Amino acid sequence: MTNNIWWDDLQIHMVEWRRHLHRNPEVSFHEEKTSSFVADMLESFGAEVKRHVGGHGVIGTIRGDKPGPVVMLRADMDALPIQDEKDVEYASQKAGAMHACGHDGHVSILLGTALYFSKHKADIQGEIRFLFQPAEELLPGGAVKVISDGALDGVDVIYGIHLWTPLPVGVAASKEGPLMAAADDFYIEIKGKGGHGGMPQSTIDSLVAGSALVMQLQTVVSRSVDPLRPAVLTIGTMQAGSAQNVIAESCKMSGTVRTFDEETRAEMKERVHTIVSQTGGAYGAQTDVNYIMGYPPVVNDERETARFFRSAVQVFGEEQVQTSPMLMPAEDFAYYLQKVPGCFMFVGAGNPDKGAIYPHHHPKFDFDEDAMQHAVKLFIAMATDYMAD
Amino acid sequence: MTNNIWWDDLQIHMVEWRRHLHRNPEVSFHEEKTSSFVADMLESFGAEVKRHVGGHGVIGTIRGDKPGPVVMLRADMDALPIQDEKDVEYASQKAGAMHACGHDGHVSILLGTALYFSKHKADIQGEIRFLFQPAEELLPGGAVKVISDGALDGVDVIYGIHLWTPLPVGVAASKEGPLMAAADDFYIEIKGKGGHGGMPQSTIDSLVAGSALVMQLQTVVSRSVDPLRPAVLTIGTMQAGSAQNVIAESCKMSGTVRTFDEETRAEMKERVHTIVSQTGGAYGAQTDVNYIMGYPPVVNDERETARFFRSAVQVFGEEQVQTSPMLMPAEDFAYYLQKVPGCFMFVGAGNPDKGAIYPHHHPKFDFDEDAMQHAVKLFIAMATDYMAD
Amino acid sequence: MTNNIWWDDLQIHMVEWRRHLHRNPEVSFHEEKTSSFVADMLESFGAEVKRHVGGHGVIGTIRGDKPGPVVMLRADMDALPIQDEKDVEYASQKAGAMHACGHDGHVSILLGTALYFSKHKADIQGEIRFLFQPAEELLPGGAVKVISDGALDGVDVIYGIHLWTPLPVGVAASKEGPLMAAADDFYIEIKGKGGHGGMPQSTIDSLVAGSALVMQLQTVVSRSVDPLRPAVLTIGTMQAGSAQNVIAESCKMSGTVRTFDEETRAEMKERVHTIVSQTGGAYGAQTDVNYIMGYPPVVNDERETARFFRSAVQVFGEEQVQTSPMLMPAEDFAYYLQKVPGCFMFVGAGNPDKGAIYPHHHPKFDFDEDAMQHAVKLFIAMATDYMAD
Amino acid sequence: MTNNIWWDDLQIHMVEWRRHLHRNPEVSFHEEKTSSFVADMLESFGAEVKRHVGGHGVIGTIRGDKPGPVVMLRADMDALPIQDEKDVEYASQKAGAMHACGHDGHVSILLGTALYFSKHKADIQGEIRFLFQPAEELLPGGAVKVISDGALDGVDVIYGIHLWTPLPVGVAASKEGPLMAAADDFYIEIKGKGGHGGMPQSTIDSLVAGSALVMQLQTVVSRSVDPLRPAVLTIGTMQAGSAQNVIAESCKMSGTVRTFDEETRAEMKERVHTIVSQTGGAYGAQTDVNYIMGYPPVVNDERETARFFRSAVQVFGEEQVQTSPMLMPAEDFAYYLQKVPGCFMFVGAGNPDKGAIYPHHHPKFDFDEDAMQHAVKLFIAMATDYMAD
Repeated sequence: MTNNIWWDDLQIHMVEWRRHLHRNPEVSFHEEKTSSFVADMLESFGAEVKRHVGGHGVIGTIRGDKPGPVVMLRADMDALPIQDEKDVEYASQKAGAMHACGHDGHVSILLGTALYFSKHKADIQGEIRFLFQPAEELLPGGAVKVISDGALDGVDVIYGIHLWTPLPVGVAASKEGPLMAAADDFYIEIKGKGGHGGMPQSTIDSLVAGSALVMQLQTVVSRSVDPLRPAVLTIGTMQAGSAQNVIAESCKMSGTVRTFDEETRAEMKERVHTIVSQTGGAYGAQTDVNYIMGYPPVVNDERETARFFRSAVQVFGEEQVQTSPMLMPAEDFAYYLQKVPGCFMFVGAGNPDKGAIYPHHHPKFDFDEDAMQHAVKLFIAMATDYMAD
Repeated sequence: MTNNIWWDDLQIHMVEWRRHLHRNPEVSFHEEKTSSFVADMLESFGAEVKRHVGGHGVIGTIRGDKPGPVVMLRADMDALPIQDEKDVEYASQKAGAMHACGHDGHVSILLGTALYFSKHKADIQGEIRFLFQPAEELLPGGAVKVISDGALDGVDVIYGIHLWTPLPVGVAASKEGPLMAAADDFYIEIKGKGGHGGMPQSTIDSLVAGSALVMQLQTVVSRSVDPLRPAVLTIGTMQAGSAQNVIAESCKMSGTVRTFDEETRAEMKERVHTIVSQTGGAYGAQTDVNYIMGYPPVVNDERETARFFRSAVQVFGEEQVQTSPMLMPAEDFAYYLQKVPGCFMFVGAGNPDKGAIYPHHHPKFDFDEDAMQHAVKLFIAMATDYMAD
Repeated sequence: MTNNIWWDDLQIHMVEWRRHLHRNPEVSFHEEKTSSFVADMLESFGAEVKRHVGGHGVIGTIRGDKPGPVVMLRADMDALPIQDEKDVEYASQKAGAMHACGHDGHVSILLGTALYFSKHKADIQGEIRFLFQPAEELLPGGAVKVISDGALDGVDVIYGIHLWTPLPVGVAASKEGPLMAAADDFYIEIKGKGGHGGMPQSTIDSLVAGSALVMQLQTVVSRSVDPLRPAVLTIGTMQAGSAQNVIAESCKMSGTVRTFDEETRAEMKERVHTIVSQTGGAYGAQTDVNYIMGYPPVVNDERETARFFRSAVQVFGEEQVQTSPMLMPAEDFAYYLQKVPGCFMFVGAGNPDKGAIYPHHHPKFDFDEDAMQHAVKLFIAMATDYMAD
Repeated sequence: MTNNIWWDDLQIHMVEWRRHLHRNPEVSFHEEKTSSFVADMLESFGAEVKRHVGGHGVIGTIRGDKPGPVVMLRADMDALPIQDEKDVEYASQKAGAMHACGHDGHVSILLGTALYFSKHKADIQGEIRFLFQPAEELLPGGAVKVISDGALDGVDVIYGIHLWTPLPVGVAASKEGPLMAAADDFYIEIKGKGGHGGMPQSTIDSLVAGSALVMQLQTVVSRSVDPLRPAVLTIGTMQAGSAQNVIAESCKMSGTVRTFDEETRAEMKERVHTIVSQTGGAYGAQTDVNYIMGYPPVVNDERETARFFRSAVQVFGEEQVQTSPMLMPAEDFAYYLQKVPGCFMFVGAGNPDKGAIYPHHHPKFDFDEDAMQHAVKLFIAMATDYMAD
């Protein structure tokens, strides 16, 4: 491998890159400068670079001396439309935009990994492709276009890492099978017929129909779904009516559905549509459902997750490697895993001593930058182990 | 009119007739001997008699000396399938059958009235028809066939009296417009798909669908019906499932609907069907509704009810005449009032001193026989007033 | 009585007064100038005048030559906070205020009636008091203070008239017993515990608790209330949550309850409180209910309503007098009827030919001014009949 | 180990033992003869035997030549109150009792394992205890008394095997952590106040309260429980009312709750109690809940499950070892795992070629007897591996 001095240097570079990106966040689908920065940097490492992959995506390729499989490593690049509230010198310089999820770190990690392999081509049997993906944070997500642009052509395996502040720095976690939820949203309107609060017979009370609907929707999880497959249906908002003595013409609701497998996901969508239309029908109301499919569940490959557990033990030590619980947030890495085997992994980045105590998407979010080096080592171990397999 | 001695004699006759009938009750659609008894008696009074009207119905006609309208007076004749528990010498001699609603009294009253008019033909301008109707207590009721058999042909007005133990003897009551409810029943089955209590995903839980249905049916009265029109929807029974750890294949319910006008009645029937099918549909269950229309509401004519209030004040005294509340039981006199104007009236027959304290249909039901004479006088007053109008 | 020329003159005066008031509306509790106008006018008629009765109330008294009872006639004086949208020369000159319910007409009618009696003292046996009441349109209503200020002292009977555009001009209507609803309002908050839409276990979902509450509140009318006593419970508004993927911390609702008798009214209030607190408790949520009692039901006296039907037939003709249905709006005339017998009456004021087609409280509301004369005649007939009784 | 001839002999013995037990089933808490049979057999193998452990329990102990840990292996012995419908020569000879869950096989397996170790004491470092437990099928289960009788004193680890016909013969499965559900049952009564179907105001409608309860209980799983922790709440039965036109005095329900961890289990019990009492209270009804705690969840130890996966691969081959899904049935082996680490394992016993196609507890249940030998080998491998650790 490489000596400690090299790693110290890399860390200095990665912190520099990351802070540059942190000061200059670009929100989903607008990662123009980030994309150029990444592409230029990859070229400077001697990688073969393809720009404008599925929008602002960039793929760098480094080929080994020996033939072998194609390993893809992925980072996401986009920031969030959140106002940075941190008081640090590298705080966002763009009002209303912020790297509040750690994607700046992901970019640095993947650049660091590319730099490593550019110096260690002898370790590569086959080739490694470094995918910098735009727009993870916003539907429909950047992965879809990146894939349709051919990014996965010839790829044998894909790995992704998320820095994770709920885990302490020095720890890694993943899980075979379903790891992160599919998150689908819905917007429902029940159109009744308003009227005088004292004369219900001339109306169709959308508020009562809406309440009946909320109660019946509880049965999707309690009765229709396999209890062994996690599922959530939340109605987050409800608005109906404008005056206490007038029957509400319309009742609007919105909600979210979380699942970890496609079968349950499809079942819940179908149940929501059925229950909405039938409940509306019971009251003679018109109904409208806008059901927006988000990302699929992230489902890790069995063999590649076993590789993670082996590799992570080497990098982090046996006691520091955990089986992750399933997580409710969604991640468009899911789309890659529908096409090729792979593993999505969490690298602990929380550290109270450095103020890295806020949850992802918080206006004061930050992470322990040491975690970046751990992540590079995990990427290297995964890729190397795969190519040696 | 007639002197007191005549009335005393009549009372002796009416008690005798009534007790004879009370000892020999015949349940709905089986009033063979009662019918013969009535017909023979009417003939003995010199009335023109038509037997077998709509089954066991009998019509006696007495014509006056002068031409004029046709007034019909009606009594119902059938007993109930109830075991008499009274300890009186005139108790029912037939096991499992009993005059527990006072129809024996109604027959005696109408015979007494016929006897009166047979002696006072000079008072009659036109003719009076005495209708003894079978089968008031059992759907579809005797009135329907009696009417289809032509009983109302040429009839100008119809009056009916019910002895009523909730009112003290000496009192009369009626009400313009809706007086007695339409009583319709329904039987619902929700056919789901049973299964293991721990595996709801493979089932359609009919018990949950049934419970949702019960809650939604509450809105028929609370939201769909004009609050100014009385309406009741009761689900009286629910049976679902056979074991605590098995999801119920089927859920059965039965209930009753009470209304006082045809529009509300039809609306509720339609709402029940809609809500059942849509709620079943929301859960993917099959549904079956057997909705049995009972008698229509008894709706008294405005002018004839005014006649009641005038006539009853003469017979009972001003303080003794009441406006009846609407009543939830049903009465097939309603069918006559759909065809010709008329009035249905209550004559108080309760008397704690004589043990007449039980509600109608109670195994110990009895009434104060003095009420029969009051009823005869009310019939006479109504008929006479009409013909004089 | 009086000749036609006098009535024509009166009509000219009443139109003038009414239009003056219409141009210068004063909303509830601010009827200062209206009050002075009325008081000055009454004094000009020679009436004994008491100002500042229960606020801006005015009572004029005209005594007859002969002793007898005290008859009170009442008009309400306040306008509504509505922008007048009519295009007539007498439209409101005050922005955001308008006589949109006809109280300007009521004042003119009562002034006209006073003028009549000031000229016909010989017709008066006893005395007639003309009550001009403020603030009928706004809780807690002007009647309460007017009464506590002694307005009803010595009063034997009270009559009130409402011009009513849903009835055509030339018609009068009233009803014995309950005529207008008690209207009580409620404001409910369910305080749960918000949280991540995918993690319900850490929250108390106020939206689900609120929906369960709406369904359970349906049973107040369907199960707890006597079906023969009209009652309405409407939840008019519901607001919960702020984002589709966040569980709602709080759910707010508002609604109205309409009843026609005090027993049902109290029962419903008690049921709402019980169901809210128990349903909240079922979910571990805190609840808050603000239940605001509005006016009681308007319940007309039996004898005085009979007087209305007699008197109105004389004034309007038999075909033009109707039994009113019960009405859902509330009226603080109810408070007077709790203290002394009386009758509240509707005088038809709708007329498509004159554009009097809008419902009360509509920005284009207007009435047929001829109705004012009918109302004066009805007041005169009622008072005269009572004093002659 | 031992040669094939020995294994063939053992199989002959085990089949003989198993069929003897199958012909002579003894239901839970009545395993008298089974117990003697087992104890005599163990003594014939030279084991040290303790009879009457927690009722009809038996513990045989075989000590090795070298000191070491205490490994306990467990079999359950009781039959079910089911009528055997199989047409085989070894069918149950006792009416209404049958080994329909395979416990006869479990006894034979454990006897076979004891026979093996009695011949291979040199392989034992420490001692092996063979626990034959009564009454697994019936609450409160035999394990509780066996434990309180000291059966686990000094035990370091415990293993249990269940023959499993849903898995084909030749396969083994288990799972780290929660494997089998806690199964708790509840019986609820809502005591309202019955009455006339047309007069709800005089009643407390227990059927409506019960239906509201069913809907609210859906939220236990949909809202109160961690979506990542499997949980089921089923209401299996509901009975209310006796006639369609009478409001139901009482509503009875029964149901079952399945969970896989004690925290969720306690949470659900608490939620059921709260929702029942609050919902009853909302309607003014009395409520009664009888909540019967069944067995706890079976939770396998992490290290011992890893041992299973290692050992099973040796015995069954890599392709034949599966990760079991969580299973909804309960098992009182759970109590042992609350006290000492261990692993509960499934050995495939289904085989269409031999008619072993019916689910456990079916009247035609049978298993492939070859599975017994697999199970013996798994027990041996587990015990040996543990002692060598």
